[in-house]
Amino acid sequence: MRQSGTNLPKVGRYNRAVVMDQIQLADGISRVEIAEHTGLTPQTVSGIVRRLLDEGIVWEDGASRASHGGKPRTTLRLNPDAGRAIGLHFDPVELTCALVDLLGRPLAVRKRPTPSGTDPSHVVAAMTELVAEVRASAGVPHEEVLGLGLATPGPIDLEQGVIVTPPQLAHWSRVPVRRMLSDATGLPVTLDNDATAAAVGERWSGAGKGVANFAYFFFGTGIGGGLILNHQVYRGGSFNAGEFGHSAVLPDGPECYCGNRGCLERLINPSAIVTEVHRRLAARSGGSVLSQAFGQDPASVDHAAVQRAAADGDPVAAAVIDEAAQHVASVAVSVANFIDVDLIVLGGHGIHHVESRYVEAVAAALATRPLSRNIRVTEVEASLLGTDAAVVGAAALVLHATYSPQLSALLAD
Amino acid sequence: MRQSGTNLPKVGRYNRAVVMDQIQLADGISRVEIAEHTGLTPQTVSGIVRRLLDEGIVWEDGASRASHGGKPRTTLRLNPDAGRAIGLHFDPVELTCALVDLLGRPLAVRKRPTPSGTDPSHVVAAMTELVAEVRASAGVPHEEVLGLGLATPGPIDLEQGVIVTPPQLAHWSRVPVRRMLSDATGLPVTLDNDATAAAVGERWSGAGKGVANFAYFFFGTGIGGGLILNHQVYRGGSFNAGEFGHSAVLPDGPECYCGNRGCLERLINPSAIVTEVHRRLAARSGGSVLSQAFGQDPASVDHAAVQRAAADGDPVAAAVIDEAAQHVASVAVSVANFIDVDLIVLGGHGIHHVESRYVEAVAAALATRPLSRNIRVTEVEASLLGTDAAVVGAAALVLHATYSPQLSALLAD
Repeated sequence: MRQSGTNLPKVGRYNRAVVMDQIQLADGISRVEIAEHTGLTPQTVSGIVRRLLDEGIVWEDGASRASHGGKPRTTLRLNPDAGRAIGLHFDPVELTCALVDLLGRPLAVRKRPTPSGTDPSHVVAAMTELVAEVRASAGVPHEEVLGLGLATPGPIDLEQGVIVTPPQLAHWSRVPVRRMLSDATGLPVTLDNDATAAAVGERWSGAGKGVANFAYFFFGTGIGGGLILNHQVYRGGSFNAGEFGHSAVLPDGPECYCGNRGCLERLINPSAIVTEVHRRLAARSGGSVLSQAFGQDPASVDHAAVQRAAADGDPVAAAVIDEAAQHVASVAVSVANFIDVDLIVLGGHGIHHVESRYVEAVAAALATRPLSRNIRVTEVEASLLGTDAAVVGAAALVLHATYSPQLSALLAD
Repeated sequence: MRQSGTNLPKVGRYNRAVVMDQIQLADGISRVEIAEHTGLTPQTVSGIVRRLLDEGIVWEDGASRASHGGKPRTTLRLNPDAGRAIGLHFDPVELTCALVDLLGRPLAVRKRPTPSGTDPSHVVAAMTELVAEVRASAGVPHEEVLGLGLATPGPIDLEQGVIVTPPQLAHWSRVPVRRMLSDATGLPVTLDNDATAAAVGERWSGAGKGVANFAYFFFGTGIGGGLILNHQVYRGGSFNAGEFGHSAVLPDGPECYCGNRGCLERLINPSAIVTEVHRRLAARSGGSVLSQAFGQDPASVDHAAVQRAAADGDPVAAAVIDEAAQHVASVAVSVANFIDVDLIVLGGHGIHHVESRYVEAVAAALATRPLSRNIRVTEVEASLLGTDAAVVGAAALVLHATYSPQLSALLAD
């Protein structure tokens, strides 16, 4: 729990990552620009770039841009083929696996239902098959894969690589999933919670690219979140920061499984939203395109149907979504007031089709309610990675751990 | 907004601060222990310590402790007399000024009412007089003062050194207080908001000493807060993080000046608490020691009287305070869920006398409501600096800026 010093080898690795980061974040950048942005000397930048070129991680794209009256500058880009990573999103309902290139672009994606039952080893076996399928379909040999990132529901014990009794996985208790999966796949495994993974994905190749401070709200079966603060993944003292779903937005609201009352997640999780829409349809709220389907088979009015209807402006579905968005807006205001982030990103399949309704409600609240809005307004954007945020984020965990400047490594013992 | 690289001179300064930090946080520490804690080599530590001894900032206290079978180790301590700093807390009602030694211990404290009226220059003149008084009463010459720390209500523009229209200072609009005060006192001025200053004070010499991640809730005329994350002051993208007072704890609650509804600060600021106690006394709530005084002169039942009565267990005052503490507990749970801090510190004159009632309510909530409580429970403590937190914190701003390891300096352009 103390602050560590640093030394020359660590500084060298850190500066290399800082240069990589500049090249990765920019759409083409010159050595001179890298030096300007990082405060590193041109000699240091040149040396690092030479090694990155030698290793094939970076290339000169041939194009050179004339600077203002100066000599042309060679443009550097990341070589997308210099590394592959596999991401695996472990949702209690579905496993999703993606193989991505160095820019975080998916080359192959596969899904399958999460095996039900109580034995974690069955789930790990299914994960292992899915990883092999994805690798085969992308035609990438095992040895070209940098590693496997696993995005799982929290809470997790990151130091031990263990999943700690997630509320939606009743029979999982301190399962050493990192070791199990690494043994089964022969790949190094980087574990993180799904929302942090999605945030890392947004930082690598999505809406959070280059943003110093942002919060990611992840809408899945539950509602989680991730934080990037001062360009670093902020995980908190027990590695469980970003639980935005468990703020009491209604102090006398219904009990949440977490022990709190009136939590955001309790009020607006997919099944709560479907229940509320059903209640209104049963009370014959007027003019919904869902009424007929509900009359014939209530189960057909599921979360996806509600989201699509709301996106089309159906009055019942849209009203329920807009009320949910108001609750999200209230939590977003607290996040802005507490953490003073530059940007809030909303993503995950839980808001699929209705992203813009959520973004609009949150934007209106951020413009009018945080205390420091007169200094600058916190922005809000929908995830660029959409429903793939968690799985691309899982793969980005590997890229991020391999290539991004990590203060923890600069300062590690 | 990019990540910066670093270099040898910056690393040297950073490592020096890391060593200072170890000596400052410990109650006596050896060179070997510093090397163990920081990951620095014994040679690096010895070199830095030698220079700190030469400069008189650190001393060997004579005592040497035998290590397990090894040779005795010389104990190093900070020399409290090696530096002085002055702190000034600018509250809309009262100015407080303190001169502290290098351990953050006040050597002299003076207060005076904040001049009323609309002209900031009158306030700066009063501040300047107060600084001179404190320095004279402590008998410290001008040239021995490292600097002046100013803790002011937020929001502030830290880069410009400007106070931006604080809600409780109606006529202050972008006042360049840092420059004005520096011109008037001849001292370098470090500006921060009062709650961040108090948090820095807690880190320097209070409950947060050595804690990697903590949130400080500051109860003054309003309710603010400060964050220390990964051992660093976290200020947020616009330098206004930690506004814990502006979370909507009652979504349909009364309007707050901030633009939000049902904010913690709106519900439990001192005047709201007094109003609620008066309401209950007027409704003849039974058995309060305050009833008679209220009957004779309602104004005599002020905030201080309420706090003292609650501390003595008066049923009316205690019930109002305990309800306020429940609201604080709810926000503390959100802070634990969002930011996953190790510790929450409660301080400021707004909870004077009733600290333990607040600590108890928050502790009970933190033990039962945050999602990751099964991994570890976030602790809560009352400020060790008590009502002096902001002014000692203001002085600690100077010590912290001068001596603590600042990643921002390690990574600055």
